[in-house]
Parts: sequence; structure tokens; C-alpha cells
Amino acid sequence: MASTLVLVSKARCFRGEVHKYAHDSAVTNVKMTFNIYLPDAALTNKEKVPVLYYLSGLTCNEDNMITKGGALAHLSEARIALVTPDTSPRGAGIPGEDDDWELGTGAGFYVDATQEPWKKNYNMYSYVQNELQRVVAESFAVDTSRTSIFGHSMGGHGALVLALRNPGHYKSVSAFAPICHPSTSNWGRKQFAEYLGSNESTWAAYDATELVKRYDGPMLPVLVDQGDADQFYSSKQLQPSHLVIATESSKRPVQLDSRMQPGYDHSYYFIQSFIKEHIAFHAKHLWL
Amino acid sequence: MASTLVLVSKARCFRGEVHKYAHDSAVTNVKMTFNIYLPDAALTNKEKVPVLYYLSGLTCNEDNMITKGGALAHLSEARIALVTPDTSPRGAGIPGEDDDWELGTGAGFYVDATQEPWKKNYNMYSYVQNELQRVVAESFAVDTSRTSIFGHSMGGHGALVLALRNPGHYKSVSAFAPICHPSTSNWGRKQFAEYLGSNESTWAAYDATELVKRYDGPMLPVLVDQGDADQFYSSKQLQPSHLVIATESSKRPVQLDSRMQPGYDHSYYFIQSFIKEHIAFHAKHLWL
Repeated sequence: MASTLVLVSKARCFRGEVHKYAHDSAVTNVKMTFNIYLPDAALTNKEKVPVLYYLSGLTCNEDNMITKGGALAHLSEARIALVTPDTSPRGAGIPGEDDDWELGTGAGFYVDATQEPWKKNYNMYSYVQNELQRVVAESFAVDTSRTSIFGHSMGGHGALVLALRNPGHYKSVSAFAPICHPSTSNWGRKQFAEYLGSNESTWAAYDATELVKRYDGPMLPVLVDQGDADQFYSSKQLQPSHLVIATESSKRPVQLDSRMQPGYDHSYYFIQSFIKEHIAFHAKHLWL
Repeated sequence: MASTLVLVSKARCFRGEVHKYAHDSAVTNVKMTFNIYLPDAALTNKEKVPVLYYLSGLTCNEDNMITKGGALAHLSEARIALVTPDTSPRGAGIPGEDDDWELGTGAGFYVDATQEPWKKNYNMYSYVQNELQRVVAESFAVDTSRTSIFGHSMGGHGALVLALRNPGHYKSVSAFAPICHPSTSNWGRKQFAEYLGSNESTWAAYDATELVKRYDGPMLPVLVDQGDADQFYSSKQLQPSHLVIATESSKRPVQLDSRMQPGYDHSYYFIQSFIKEHIAFHAKHLWL
């Protein structure tokens, strides 16, 4: 059953439009919102355009990339649609869901929860991978055979996990300051214990550094940027070197370009500084 | 007496840094905050760079342009500093100052108030034109002989007024969806009555359409962009045609390029769509 999209707002931006939609989700069992940027080519149905998904980080929502990421100029130019979902269900009514910025609201971690009280709603993995992409495919002039994904921090983790678990589905994946090895950092362990339970063997399915060792599919281009003035890098929540070592040693069909950017922190100031390169990276693979 | 700047935050962005400062203002009699974007050339004191001021609109603060405007990529490239002040004093303790989004907090209108209870604090004209620019000149490697200004909506009004009242001070001025004739629109009349009093003859000093008729100074380049899907344009709060007619009929040394942009609304989606052209316009005049 296709959920009905309700248009919340619409604005012209560059040579395209930003639309915000709400819809009832059968996966998270709450109303979800997302933004989509549609270049004119898609709006006029002149052509189906490639589609890029962006997953945001802790405390963020569907708006951060659209308003602060600086992506739309480059997406307009490259004729690529951008879809930005929220970072969790909201208003699920779970006791304490709004009390901790690292858990519950704004902190879905792109997993399918198996534990109470989360499992009825906190299924952001399936929401993004299945329901949202189906809704987008049914509703807009996008060429789903040309799909890529990227994200920031918790959302960088999400993008890497979705790409590594679905070989061939994404043409490329990139991330800004992603949580690369969540089974071994506080960002990850804390949430996995809540959403997935204490049996750590179930965590590997949501851990890019573990997944990359088993990846079996078409060559996956991966771009990772990390700022060296990022406090969460210093506190070892992100661990890009773990992903690099696992990729190099496992020799799977993964082409990882992991870059350290001197002076940049964890903010959208960092993201906007390199967004043009990330869009160009995806455009190259999406329009191949 | 120079007020002491307190660094609130700092982040690298493109080839430069965004700094946020707080300082005690002798003009508004409260603590004021502003952001400044400094290209690397200014940070390393290699050269004094030109400086561009941006005035934000109703309900906004010093962050809107910096985070959502998409300007920093182009400023980095053009080696121009950007200063973004707040839109009003905050926490002045005036009864009701936070009750109406069109008056008081977030709505300083870039005037020097002459009426109670506003006149002790609501002096954003002098704050931006004098105190802030002096503080910036004393504290950073900017070439004050190369200064320009722009703004949005209420801030577009402010930018036009500051440029027209200070011949030769600004190399260029531009605006997104400015309030062009505030003495004759509700946005303007409502606030002028409160801040300046009921004697309407005092309002002309803060009305671009009136000021342009008397402008006497070096040729002033002016760029105005207006979206035709802007609800505040439709409701006649902005009236760009009044500024065009006054400029054309008065034949003062003002070179106005007033453009209508089809499909765009009043938001930062509109601003970011044309920010590159505005920065290029100022860069041309600042680096002349």
C-alpha cells in the first residue's frame, strides 16, 4: 500500500524546486517528513534524473542539508534529485524518547530495532532503504537505476551501511565525518545496545568496518572526508582509519578514497566546504 | 572606548574561517553578537581584504546568511570578508519586546529610535554604520576603503538606507526582496510610528525611495533582486517599482539594476539562488 504524500511546502531554488512532504509510514508507524530537491528536468518530466539520498546526523532532521549544506547549486547544475529524510521517527510516544540527544528522537542510527520499546517505530534502515525509496520512485521522475547515497556523522554511518548491505543498489557512496566502526565507539555501542540488544553479534550488520570485509558485489566507489579539528574525531567516535585498514586488508571490490582535511570541524561549515566535490563524485558515477 | 570582542566560536569554512563575537555596545546598551567570515589572506595578515556587510530580515539574526546564504564559497574565492550583525538588540528588558515578530526583538529596522521605550537601545542604524564598522576596522585585516553592503527584506531596506545616507562610504549596495518604500507599506509604517513617532516627516531619513531622490555623491551601483512568487511582494510590503521610478525620475548618480526573478519566494532558497551574482557584483566594485 502506497502511502499518500502530503505536500507541506514548496520553494524554487536555483533551476529546480525544494518540496517538503509528509506521509504515514508503515515501517516506523508514525508520520514521516522528507525534502526532495527536483531539478527542472524532473519537474517538467523531460527526463528521469538520477537520485541522491542524504542521511543526516544526531540531533538533525530533514532540513539540515537542504538549508545549510550548499548542495542545491551543484545538484541543479548536475541535474540530480536529492532526497533528505528525517533522522528518526518523531512523536512515537516512547517514554524518554526526547530526553537524550544521542538516543531516540533525532538518533535513529539507521537500524531496524529488535528491542522494546523501540522495535515498533525505530526502523530507519528499512524506512530509508525500502519504503522511502519506493515512495520516491512512485511519485517523482527519478531514474532509480541511478541511485547514490551520502551522509554526515551518524548519517555517514547510515550511508555506508546501506551501500555495503545492498550491492549494486547504489552507484556510489560518500560521507562527511562518518561513524566508521560503531561496534567499538561510544556512538554506536550505546545505541546498538538499546536498539539491537546486548548480543553484539547482531551489531556487525550495521557496522561499516565489519561489512566492508564481507562486501561482495560490483565495484563500490566510496569517498570519505574527515576534518582533523573535529572534536568527535579526537574523542575516537569516528575512527576513519578502521575503515581504511579493513578495506585495504580485506581486498573486497571497494574503492575507498579516505581524506583528512586539515582545520575543519564536525559542522556544516565543513560539509559545505567539500559539498561540491561530493556532488561531483556522485555525478560522475550516476551519469556514467 | 573600544568594546572588547569576546570570541564565541570559530570554524574553518572553505579557505577561511567563520568567527562569532560578542561585545558590549555603547550604542544599543546591550551585548551584541556578530559573525565575520575571514578569508585566509586576512587571517594570515597577508593582505587587507575588502569587507561586505549583510543585514538580515525580520525574525532573523546574525546566523542566517552565514549558515543558509551560500555566500562563503564565493567570498573565499573573491577574498572578501563578510560581517553579519544581528537584526536588533536582544534582552533590553523593554516590556513586550519579544511579543510581536514585526517589532522589537528581531525587528530593529536599522533606525535610531527617538521614542520611548525604544530610544535607549534600538539604534541599529548607528550600531551598524558606526560602532560595528569601527570595531571591525580595529580588530581585523580589512581595507575599510573597500566596503560594500547588502541585505534581505528589512535588511535590504537597511542596506539601501545606509548606502544612500553615506555617499562614498560604500562601493556598492545590493538587496534581495528589500522593503523599498517603508513610509507607504505596513512593514515600515508600523515600526516607524513606534521607533520614530507619528511625525511622518522624520521617516524619510529611513526610506530608500525618498533618499534616492536626494542622493548626491559618487555614482552608486545598486542591484536589487525580487522573486515574483514572494507573498510579501504580492501584499505590497516591498514595492521595488517605487524605487525604480524614483531613481529614474530623479536622475541622481545611482545606477540601479532592479530584476524580477520568476518563481522565487521570500526565503533563503531565493537568496542562495542568486548569491553568487550578488557577490560577483560587489567583488567587481570592491576590487576595482
